[in-house]
Amino acid sequence: MRVLGIDPGLTRCGFGMVDGVPGRPPFVLGVDVVRTSPHEETGARLAVLEEAMEEWVRRYRPAAVAVERVFAQHNVGTVMGTAQAAGVALLVAARHGIPTALHTPSEVKAAITGSGRAGKEQVGAMVARILQLDSVPKPADAADALALAICHVWRGQTTDRLDAARQAASGVAARQQRAYAAARAATSATSTSRGARPVMPK
Amino acid sequence: MRVLGIDPGLTRCGFGMVDGVPGRPPFVLGVDVVRTSPHEETGARLAVLEEAMEEWVRRYRPAAVAVERVFAQHNVGTVMGTAQAAGVALLVAARHGIPTALHTPSEVKAAITGSGRAGKEQVGAMVARILQLDSVPKPADAADALALAICHVWRGQTTDRLDAARQAASGVAARQQRAYAAARAATSATSTSRGARPVMPK
Repeated sequence: MRVLGIDPGLTRCGFGMVDGVPGRPPFVLGVDVVRTSPHEETGARLAVLEEAMEEWVRRYRPAAVAVERVFAQHNVGTVMGTAQAAGVALLVAARHGIPTALHTPSEVKAAITGSGRAGKEQVGAMVARILQLDSVPKPADAADALALAICHVWRGQTTDRLDAARQAASGVAARQQRAYAAARAATSATSTSRGARPVMPK
Repeated sequence: MRVLGIDPGLTRCGFGMVDGVPGRPPFVLGVDVVRTSPHEETGARLAVLEEAMEEWVRRYRPAAVAVERVFAQHNVGTVMGTAQAAGVALLVAARHGIPTALHTPSEVKAAITGSGRAGKEQVGAMVARILQLDSVPKPADAADALALAICHVWRGQTTDRLDAARQAASGVAARQQRAYAAARAATSATSTSRGARPVMPK
């Protein structure tokens, strides 16, 4: 399953594309951070993100787009731009008929590190380890986009291929599962999830 | 000056197009409210708004697009969708090279009614009176979109044609000007305005 993860933002928008197969670490196809200037008008900045998004979708044809769920009560100063960047991502995905999903930061952290309260460094380090990268992707928006994509691949797998998921769900994975379930339970907003469980690669 | 006013929203998005000439009541070219279903995915809903927006822009070729400025601290439940609908409006305008402006609800109310705290009914009644309509446009999103467009036409006029503006700025207009100036002063967010003053038609 090929998934495009998007960490939305007007100033920095993270894009991360991974291919996942049950029971194996996902493979990273690409990662980038697109920046737009705060001196530009919002519409022009969103147009830059739209173009980047179109390019990623056309080049890699992902099966799903996973976007970070933004909450209005957090980061009042940047939340409007973040919401608009996320909106453009969802719009372009809809235009190409690609299913979308929203994951909260704590869901992603729990799926990747085993703790919904993990720090940026911990998420980055685990993303590098899972994807067998030589170094942690920088800036954090790049690592976060990959983390979103990994989180979604693992959820998709467990939904679609329960046998493989159950087989893989042992050892360190159990901790991730519990933390992920706790993070989901703590999330008040509804989600597209239907009991999917994250699974660590063997 | 032809202006498209947009009262952004995912469930109801108001569109209002007016043509304005200094010292005269603006002429209404069109008004509509586009609805999208909350049962649809956000991306698909934004795609509906994008299409509507494209149609309005192509049909009327406005010189400017005026969008209501959304604040994160208000209406937490709907603010994300409102921000995303506004983002799509700004994106489509940028795509066509049309200048955009954001006006706060209190700026618009002050420009239209003379009070930044006017109620929905009062705004609707004044919009109908200014545009010489037989009845108040319904729902409120339609009246609000027209109010945004009128507000912007009057500001554009006073910026571009100061002589005409000064000439027209008498009588009832003075009250609107003071209320509008107070509303702007009370607005913490920066704006594209550079001392523009609203003027009532003669």
